[in-house]
Amino acid sequence: MVIEAIKEKGADFFVMQSGNANFFYATKFRSSSMMFYIAGIDGTELLILPEMELRRSLRESRVKEIASYEMLGYEEKIKELKNPKMAIAEILVQILKEGRARKVVIPNDFPSFFAFILQKNFEVEVIDNPFTKLRAVKNSWEIAEIRENCQKIIQVFPKIIKIVQDNKKLSCEEVKNILENELWVRGLISEDTICSTGKLSADPHEVGSGKIEDHLLIDVFPRNRKGYYADFTRTVIINQNPELKEMLSAVIDAQKVAFRMLKEGVNGKDVHNAVKDELKSHGFETRKDEGFIHSTGHGIGLEVHEEPKIGDIDVELRSGMVVTVEPGLYYKNVGGVRVEDVVLIKKDGCEILTPFERFLA
Amino acid sequence: MVIEAIKEKGADFFVMQSGNANFFYATKFRSSSMMFYIAGIDGTELLILPEMELRRSLRESRVKEIASYEMLGYEEKIKELKNPKMAIAEILVQILKEGRARKVVIPNDFPSFFAFILQKNFEVEVIDNPFTKLRAVKNSWEIAEIRENCQKIIQVFPKIIKIVQDNKKLSCEEVKNILENELWVRGLISEDTICSTGKLSADPHEVGSGKIEDHLLIDVFPRNRKGYYADFTRTVIINQNPELKEMLSAVIDAQKVAFRMLKEGVNGKDVHNAVKDELKSHGFETRKDEGFIHSTGHGIGLEVHEEPKIGDIDVELRSGMVVTVEPGLYYKNVGGVRVEDVVLIKKDGCEILTPFERFLA
Repeated sequence: MVIEAIKEKGADFFVMQSGNANFFYATKFRSSSMMFYIAGIDGTELLILPEMELRRSLRESRVKEIASYEMLGYEEKIKELKNPKMAIAEILVQILKEGRARKVVIPNDFPSFFAFILQKNFEVEVIDNPFTKLRAVKNSWEIAEIRENCQKIIQVFPKIIKIVQDNKKLSCEEVKNILENELWVRGLISEDTICSTGKLSADPHEVGSGKIEDHLLIDVFPRNRKGYYADFTRTVIINQNPELKEMLSAVIDAQKVAFRMLKEGVNGKDVHNAVKDELKSHGFETRKDEGFIHSTGHGIGLEVHEEPKIGDIDVELRSGMVVTVEPGLYYKNVGGVRVEDVVLIKKDGCEILTPFERFLA
Repeated sequence: MVIEAIKEKGADFFVMQSGNANFFYATKFRSSSMMFYIAGIDGTELLILPEMELRRSLRESRVKEIASYEMLGYEEKIKELKNPKMAIAEILVQILKEGRARKVVIPNDFPSFFAFILQKNFEVEVIDNPFTKLRAVKNSWEIAEIRENCQKIIQVFPKIIKIVQDNKKLSCEEVKNILENELWVRGLISEDTICSTGKLSADPHEVGSGKIEDHLLIDVFPRNRKGYYADFTRTVIINQNPELKEMLSAVIDAQKVAFRMLKEGVNGKDVHNAVKDELKSHGFETRKDEGFIHSTGHGIGLEVHEEPKIGDIDVELRSGMVVTVEPGLYYKNVGGVRVEDVVLIKKDGCEILTPFERFLA
């Protein structure tokens, strides 16, 4: 895939910096140090990093060829340049020149500092990171990680819903703490969990605070220790509120429409449009900042939001993709509701990895 | 500071993308969405983001002027370009052109995708992010956050050390779990905590596994819910091992040398050199990948490693900086030892924010 990406642009090398999911995916090595991964059109791969990480990377990384900055003349360069980043940039240029590079491709998020120095020495073009596309289709090991995360959420949620329904004086923060604790003891780290209520819940990413009003929107996206996410939302209606109930019914129906469509070969955009149509058929219009104001879903994996996006852009779904399906409705004078499940795309349909009651009223 | 950085380069605007500590520091707004912060030489500031985040950002962000992509023509642009990133890039260019930009400065880590498009329209230069420098000196509120984190570590450590000393059959993983749990219940999130032992601990970032051998190196860097870190290391010698004991004594002495020097106005490089000299005077040489193979310390705040670096590069320490002091010694045939404390730089000295016994043998 990387070689194809290099070829497609008539380039010789692909270079990527550390500090993102693609780098970990490509190298299977984590460090807070600044590192680079270089792939050549001939299939060579090189990881460069500080000497201090060399032995560990030789044990842990998937990449076979690893060199330290120090092995590549860092000490002399830093003396001359007095700037670690400049010294590392010179090492990058030197390696690429030794490889007779003429054109180098870099991913969209490649840091401009290094890109501008590469530009002075080579033709440089930005591309969509080929690993982003590779990551969109999960292997069986990755599916198992996400499946396990989803199962843990499903274990925890009956208790959470009961607590919310039984204790009408709980605050949003209290529910968030209980939920995050239950997931923590199962090995999952949750941050920025949304427990929002009232009119402010009309902002999809409002985290929520204070006393729970007529309903509670709970959106949690925990990560396990290997770095894999899950993502799950339920809306609990606590006090009779016909508007919220109708909105919740509509998003549940819209989600069903998506579930029926999702399978290998389908265009995500068609699914998104069908979800929009279903919400409209329930009488819920979308205008500017109200209604169904986000996309239908997104891939999950080493990032909580990754490819494929199920929204306004064409994307062919493939077996092994793991995506969220999360229609929502948001009106400033009412509030917001959303249901969200994780599904695995298969040849003939989809498997819901987070099977749990949706109409909670 | 931002205006000065723009002026210094003869530019008109500074542009930064979201997804890093500087962006949160500058805007006081967090979102997983792609957002941009634009500062003009005339002091104007603009935050641009998806419509879906508009109301929340108007409530939460420090930046007064906020516009959504949708307000800036996103819908038409996406129809024409079929690529969200391209549409956003066009919006960026449009805003800068309306501001009559000729030269734009961007931070080192600005994504190349957007930088290359800016280059087609303006003169573009990369600079060290001015917010990185601002963040190095903490205000009283930030110091309070870090101080509280440090106090929580100090609360937890007596228990951890006792457990390690009393239960010689514990594994590294068990200690890590107990420690991370104790910090979690106090509101701190720890990941990738190091509990390493034996010869592999000669790699400073080896996380550790299996039965504890002669010693345990515990390095934990928890973060609170506002995003602030602490960073702390102790080495516990469990079985008599004269080599490890001598190494531990040496790093403790080296740390004392640093504590005595640290104050406003001092050059971090001089501190680092004094630490190196002290370790040498104990007979511990550094060569290639053994000895004292990393720097003396680093700033902590919204990132676990931030400015200032106390190492081989000149840096003037200033009152209000919060840094780690963490000499270590690593030998392949013995293992590694390190002690690490967090200190606050003051006018006439430094305050150790993590006062806790060092010689644990």
